[in-house]
Amino acid sequence: MEISIDRDSSEPIFRQIVREIRGFIRSGSLPEGFRLPPERRLADALGVNRSTIFNAYRELKALGLVDAHVGRGTAVLRAPAPIPGAIGVPWRQLFRESVARSHDPIIADLLALTERQDVISFSIGLPAPELLPLDIFAEYTAELIREVGAPLLLHCPTEGHTPLRETLAQWVAARGIRSRASEVLVVSGSQQGLDLVARIFIDPGDVVVVEEPTYIGALQSFRVAGAKIIGIPVDKDGMRTDILASILERERPKLIYTLPTYQNPSGAVMSVERRRHLLELASRWHVPILEDDPYSELRYEGEPLPSLKALDDNDLVLYQSTFSKALFPGLRIGYLVVPPVVLRQLALAKQGADLHANSFSQYLLERFVRDGHFAAHIENSKRAYRRRRDRMVAALRRDPSIGLDFDVPTGGFYIWCRLPEGVEQSALLANAAARGVVFLPGRACYPTEPTENCLRLNFSHASEEDIDVGIERFLEAVREAMVHGHAERPDGATTSPVV
Amino acid sequence: MEISIDRDSSEPIFRQIVREIRGFIRSGSLPEGFRLPPERRLADALGVNRSTIFNAYRELKALGLVDAHVGRGTAVLRAPAPIPGAIGVPWRQLFRESVARSHDPIIADLLALTERQDVISFSIGLPAPELLPLDIFAEYTAELIREVGAPLLLHCPTEGHTPLRETLAQWVAARGIRSRASEVLVVSGSQQGLDLVARIFIDPGDVVVVEEPTYIGALQSFRVAGAKIIGIPVDKDGMRTDILASILERERPKLIYTLPTYQNPSGAVMSVERRRHLLELASRWHVPILEDDPYSELRYEGEPLPSLKALDDNDLVLYQSTFSKALFPGLRIGYLVVPPVVLRQLALAKQGADLHANSFSQYLLERFVRDGHFAAHIENSKRAYRRRRDRMVAALRRDPSIGLDFDVPTGGFYIWCRLPEGVEQSALLANAAARGVVFLPGRACYPTEPTENCLRLNFSHASEEDIDVGIERFLEAVREAMVHGHAERPDGATTSPVV
Repeated sequence: MEISIDRDSSEPIFRQIVREIRGFIRSGSLPEGFRLPPERRLADALGVNRSTIFNAYRELKALGLVDAHVGRGTAVLRAPAPIPGAIGVPWRQLFRESVARSHDPIIADLLALTERQDVISFSIGLPAPELLPLDIFAEYTAELIREVGAPLLLHCPTEGHTPLRETLAQWVAARGIRSRASEVLVVSGSQQGLDLVARIFIDPGDVVVVEEPTYIGALQSFRVAGAKIIGIPVDKDGMRTDILASILERERPKLIYTLPTYQNPSGAVMSVERRRHLLELASRWHVPILEDDPYSELRYEGEPLPSLKALDDNDLVLYQSTFSKALFPGLRIGYLVVPPVVLRQLALAKQGADLHANSFSQYLLERFVRDGHFAAHIENSKRAYRRRRDRMVAALRRDPSIGLDFDVPTGGFYIWCRLPEGVEQSALLANAAARGVVFLPGRACYPTEPTENCLRLNFSHASEEDIDVGIERFLEAVREAMVHGHAERPDGATTSPVV
Repeated sequence: MEISIDRDSSEPIFRQIVREIRGFIRSGSLPEGFRLPPERRLADALGVNRSTIFNAYRELKALGLVDAHVGRGTAVLRAPAPIPGAIGVPWRQLFRESVARSHDPIIADLLALTERQDVISFSIGLPAPELLPLDIFAEYTAELIREVGAPLLLHCPTEGHTPLRETLAQWVAARGIRSRASEVLVVSGSQQGLDLVARIFIDPGDVVVVEEPTYIGALQSFRVAGAKIIGIPVDKDGMRTDILASILERERPKLIYTLPTYQNPSGAVMSVERRRHLLELASRWHVPILEDDPYSELRYEGEPLPSLKALDDNDLVLYQSTFSKALFPGLRIGYLVVPPVVLRQLALAKQGADLHANSFSQYLLERFVRDGHFAAHIENSKRAYRRRRDRMVAALRRDPSIGLDFDVPTGGFYIWCRLPEGVEQSALLANAAARGVVFLPGRACYPTEPTENCLRLNFSHASEEDIDVGIERFLEAVREAMVHGHAERPDGATTSPVV
């Protein structure tokens, strides 16, 4: 009986001994009736206290593996008979069908990339790290610890830290949205907002209308909920509400999901006429609208347009925004502005999902917004992002022979770029990743088959220098894909090279 | 046409004017053909820039409410005909049935109470605010901002910050759980762990076995998932595995949920023999076990017992723990240790739920655990909580004539207290709340009808002085309820007095 113990392990030594002896008994190397060495002898042999062996033998006895009698020592009992069919749990067969079939691992793969330094990423929508107001973050943290103390680290209400809800009600007023704090729900990032809305409204088989292309995370939430997802094309004026009209009549959807301003990924801005038409249609057919508005503050040209929620006279619109794009995503705070009857259901769903959002983040963001730092940060960010957008546009135009086609976005985070005919995206992505640059394959943004051979380039995260280098690598990859001349296949999303 | 504007509002003035005029047109006070005042005149009347009025009129035009022609001014168009049946959205009718029927608002109500100062709360399981290591929190935050910088505020992988996963794999090794970092999933608090497990395994109608009584948040997650929940009674040695055996054969559940150590709410510790029996049964019937282990570090007497996961040779056990009890809940970080095939599905579900847990919290906790502060904090907490438990036990025993019945828990957060016959809990809760003390009605901890007239008292959160005062108020309320002599009805949970 060779017992090896590891004194550097954080596992207590008596438990290591139990584990080892248990292994010998189960494997049959210690047969029934075998007498374990007396406690003192084993203690000496292993160089441990006798009480350690005492504890180990006691646990082995409690596990039913040995029996001990005074004077007769400690003997191995019959090893537990192998349980018939003890194959553990057939995990794969127990997963829910909608879970097993609904997942697109691309976001996880792209997030995993954020820990790598050697790749220039145009793939996910991150703010510029250089802009993050770390000094204010440090100063406010110290101030909060001094002034607030323990509540920073304790629970807060499911609906959100009350002062933050008040501050947010004020904040959205600047976008023409009249609301009370009681209509504001703080969520753990806007992905949770999507998920909660799906959870309270969508039964499997319910129809959800989205723009086509649309935000990949929304597709994921609606898929997990089991929705039938119908895409409405987007043009320069946003969602084609004429096409929506015919779909509403036929399909009676449970929800319309839209990003009206600086749409992700297309960059389109829904015109006021279309906004009005969308509201009319939703009212006529009694369909809720989920308005996702992460980007509207990041406006580089043109006049601001009213949000759908600001134009909504009939309580049709669930409005959602986030701090993840205009500020920073790592604190995971977003918010919804919704009618009270919906807020109550969302809050109950949230309570079951994660009790409440991070308390410290909520205190911090409340002061940050209230004291005007958020507004100031947005102005800084707009200047920097406008420059980065221009830099990427110029870099993309450096080789017109390639025939890339895109509109220059007037706000937001992305350039939506049509590839020349014959360029196959999965090959392109592999090739680009090998050269140290990645993008989001357009396929990921479509509920079904993509209708155009596009990809999404984020211009907010990389520095201007990296934009130059990264786009040069990207163009090389495109040129090579053109030379190798694949047949046109609007594809993408082999995720392995991105991991 | 009386337009009132509010210069202190954060809503832009031009948008306020649009809103006002839109209201007049919709209400009919401005009829079709009515000419709006020329821009300059209205600007003078309101004391605003002419460009403000220009912007307002332009938006009204875009909204289709007015028409403007050079030389003829700006005239109201026919007010949009009321849309037939434009009643907005019938929200209540659109909620999912399982959502509408599954919710127990008691947790939200109790969390809302955490913002009130005048009530002594024994109702929820909070750590002692006096113990929170705010100085270390402040010091580490400053250090992290200096050394790590922007990544604190950016995205991190869905599965969790890699160094934290490594540190947690080490941490659980001390409880005999052998795992690699790749088997650790960081979640946004253990409530999310419950929710994610339910989401990947439970289809409506699937059977989940729980202890009876059990953790209220788990009941909520399983209810939302549409599970049929079956309770197995708990005695001093934990879940009655003999009863479980017969249920497994009959019901073939999809999941067994258990809190084996310092069970919430009963305080019971599952014996090693029962742990072994439970694992045998799960193996025989191929049923996964979700082992929830928030309290095992908070041990006031007796020897530590091995977790189910540590005894599990067949990958039957999904292990879950959290920082919310032994450390602080406001940062919302918990973790699971699970087989890789399950981790992958949980991570995909988490990605759809909230992308990832708070980045800053993960960096902070990683250092806190790695540097030994967590272990030191647990030792401090145990000393304080043992004293508070003893204080509460002594206070409850001060009037033996009442006939309260409870076991003294050897760890964890709660005293599970049987009321004398004839005391009706909803009346008692209202009475106690009026006196400024609240508890958790036992009813909330049962999947169906409660089998005993018990309530749960938390002893970790209130100070020793507050424990004395609060229990005195509580005993007065019990005495009064006994005098008023209601018929015995094991009830509770009218939540209004708790709000």
